[in-house]
Amino acid sequence: MSTSGLNMSRRIRRTPYTDRVEQVGVRGFSVVNHMLLPKAFQPTVEEDYWHLRSHVQIWDVSCQRQVQIQGPHAARLVQWMTPRDIRKCAVGQCMYVPIVDDQAGLLNDPVMLKLAEDRFWLSIADSDLLLYAKGLAIGAGMDVRVDEPDVNTLAVQGPKAEDLMVDVFGPGIREVRFFRFGWFDFAGTRQLIARGGYSKPGGFEIYLDDRALAERLWDTVWAAGQKYQITPGCPNIIDRVEAGLLSYGNEMTRENNPLEISLAKYCSLDGSVDYIGRAALQAIAARGVQREIRGVLFDGGPCPPCAKPWPVMVGTHKVGQVTTGIWSPRLERNIGLSLIERGFWDPGQPVEVLTVDGLVRPGELCALPFD
Amino acid sequence: MSTSGLNMSRRIRRTPYTDRVEQVGVRGFSVVNHMLLPKAFQPTVEEDYWHLRSHVQIWDVSCQRQVQIQGPHAARLVQWMTPRDIRKCAVGQCMYVPIVDDQAGLLNDPVMLKLAEDRFWLSIADSDLLLYAKGLAIGAGMDVRVDEPDVNTLAVQGPKAEDLMVDVFGPGIREVRFFRFGWFDFAGTRQLIARGGYSKPGGFEIYLDDRALAERLWDTVWAAGQKYQITPGCPNIIDRVEAGLLSYGNEMTRENNPLEISLAKYCSLDGSVDYIGRAALQAIAARGVQREIRGVLFDGGPCPPCAKPWPVMVGTHKVGQVTTGIWSPRLERNIGLSLIERGFWDPGQPVEVLTVDGLVRPGELCALPFD
Repeated sequence: MSTSGLNMSRRIRRTPYTDRVEQVGVRGFSVVNHMLLPKAFQPTVEEDYWHLRSHVQIWDVSCQRQVQIQGPHAARLVQWMTPRDIRKCAVGQCMYVPIVDDQAGLLNDPVMLKLAEDRFWLSIADSDLLLYAKGLAIGAGMDVRVDEPDVNTLAVQGPKAEDLMVDVFGPGIREVRFFRFGWFDFAGTRQLIARGGYSKPGGFEIYLDDRALAERLWDTVWAAGQKYQITPGCPNIIDRVEAGLLSYGNEMTRENNPLEISLAKYCSLDGSVDYIGRAALQAIAARGVQREIRGVLFDGGPCPPCAKPWPVMVGTHKVGQVTTGIWSPRLERNIGLSLIERGFWDPGQPVEVLTVDGLVRPGELCALPFD
Repeated sequence: MSTSGLNMSRRIRRTPYTDRVEQVGVRGFSVVNHMLLPKAFQPTVEEDYWHLRSHVQIWDVSCQRQVQIQGPHAARLVQWMTPRDIRKCAVGQCMYVPIVDDQAGLLNDPVMLKLAEDRFWLSIADSDLLLYAKGLAIGAGMDVRVDEPDVNTLAVQGPKAEDLMVDVFGPGIREVRFFRFGWFDFAGTRQLIARGGYSKPGGFEIYLDDRALAERLWDTVWAAGQKYQITPGCPNIIDRVEAGLLSYGNEMTRENNPLEISLAKYCSLDGSVDYIGRAALQAIAARGVQREIRGVLFDGGPCPPCAKPWPVMVGTHKVGQVTTGIWSPRLERNIGLSLIERGFWDPGQPVEVLTVDGLVRPGELCALPFD
């Protein structure tokens, strides 16, 4: 089953929603964590963007796999993996936790869910964090179990998400605060639902822990969504860039540290918390980062898709590269994300972006988010 | 740049050969290790198959990333990661080394290259083995450096590969034995070339360690290959299944142990070598595996592509599932790979395969390889 030119195999895992996603007309996939992520539904990314800002969408984000860490040393292992101080995290709370190696290079940037004092899920971006956690636990002889439960997350995103979710799961949904989660009944089971998601309008994520119920969940949300003009969707690149939401593998890799991408507020640097890479991160903080993430606004008409990074120039000097760029129909300019070299990163700095179509596009830097 | 429906981004890495691959008419990609793997060139997989058996092909297998482990504890760490006894491996030798976790579940099945007594490359299948090695090293406090050098491998495969390689790199190529490697001059640099590759005809793999030379290498091999009817290619599914070459993520996952997929000869079970998962593997060996890999020959005309595993039935009992299946034009039957439940795995066992097209296809089991 070759779907839209991506050669399929069992190695690239379908999700329990993929049949439904195909039935509603998916036009392409990406691959995240060895699993399919739908990438296009509406005729254009722009229509999808306007819809996401106005109504509600259902997203198959099963590729956000869960690295489950449980046992007596679970909290110790999770804290060891991240520069963020997680000591005050409550059960029922989510936290964005950058994960770094001993050189302070970013390995992933998951959302952590604290299910119990001794049980955590790391809802991961695109790298096998499971293997890192396993290696650390085995290497250090920790008393934990590390595995990937078959949780398949369905996101409901957009301004009408709350009303829709209340219709399906009851008024208790309204009590769930941002980056908190609760447990709700579905078909006789208890399922974890968190408020959040990878979009500016936000919404909810249903961490479905029973594959056999996946199509029933999809169908239930879909039916309840009809009165809210629900459509199938996926992380929208225009919305994501406007909101300054970074993407692991795009804006950050192992070559980057969290301070460069403006995550200082999630890094404990005072020595009160022990984690891998602390000395490296403290040294980087002491001497100052050499580049930092910025927004780039640039002209020349709608830019082409950004599959290879585009150089960002000040005169003949390359000061950065746009790793994700797109035309913003609302700002009526191209917008992009780029790490920018020290000395050139002030908002307002004039730059030129060299896009793949050969154009030299004038623009300037700005702070994130774009609006 | 949306190439054939796969949505591209920097997260899915292009290789230094991707421009060339596009110029010679690639028709689709897969994603392995966050990197593009070309998946189709010839009008059909069958034409590609016959060509591979008769001539020579150039394959961009940069996605076979190298996990480099070096330092005083390098040999100790690599041995800790694999059940295979690597003590007798010589510098200049390659070894296929299954990697398992503490439950003996397979995490990857790389080819190990021993570059020096204290320096190894693990040429990996599709999982971030780098993160596992990093975790182990950090967790156990080992004196090693673990990284991913920017090595981009070009494979030259097919019966005419040796003649072509001699034309480019000199007669020393003929002295390189199977699963050994040597160092050869290219454009004033020394590059590692191994005899092997992921096809039955075999050939060579050039582990290019200088990205700037990639297009020059491609062009040189391409030009020298004209007299041998060279074409661009990629791992061929018909050739792979006929030869019984397994694929991580398809025939094996973390749910499997190496004994199930006939890798007992690569597992030291006598206690002479210390590695992660040894106790689990010894226990499995003692009680006997419950399923084992087999070939499945089946009828009903050419089968459709196998994106979801197909049940293998004996009467109403599911005894396995075909994880890769394809029509063999040479055997003039469908061939597939499946783990088969104990009690049903004898060659000759009649089975039925339930393919996605709704057909019930009669067939029988056989030993691997198919011929």
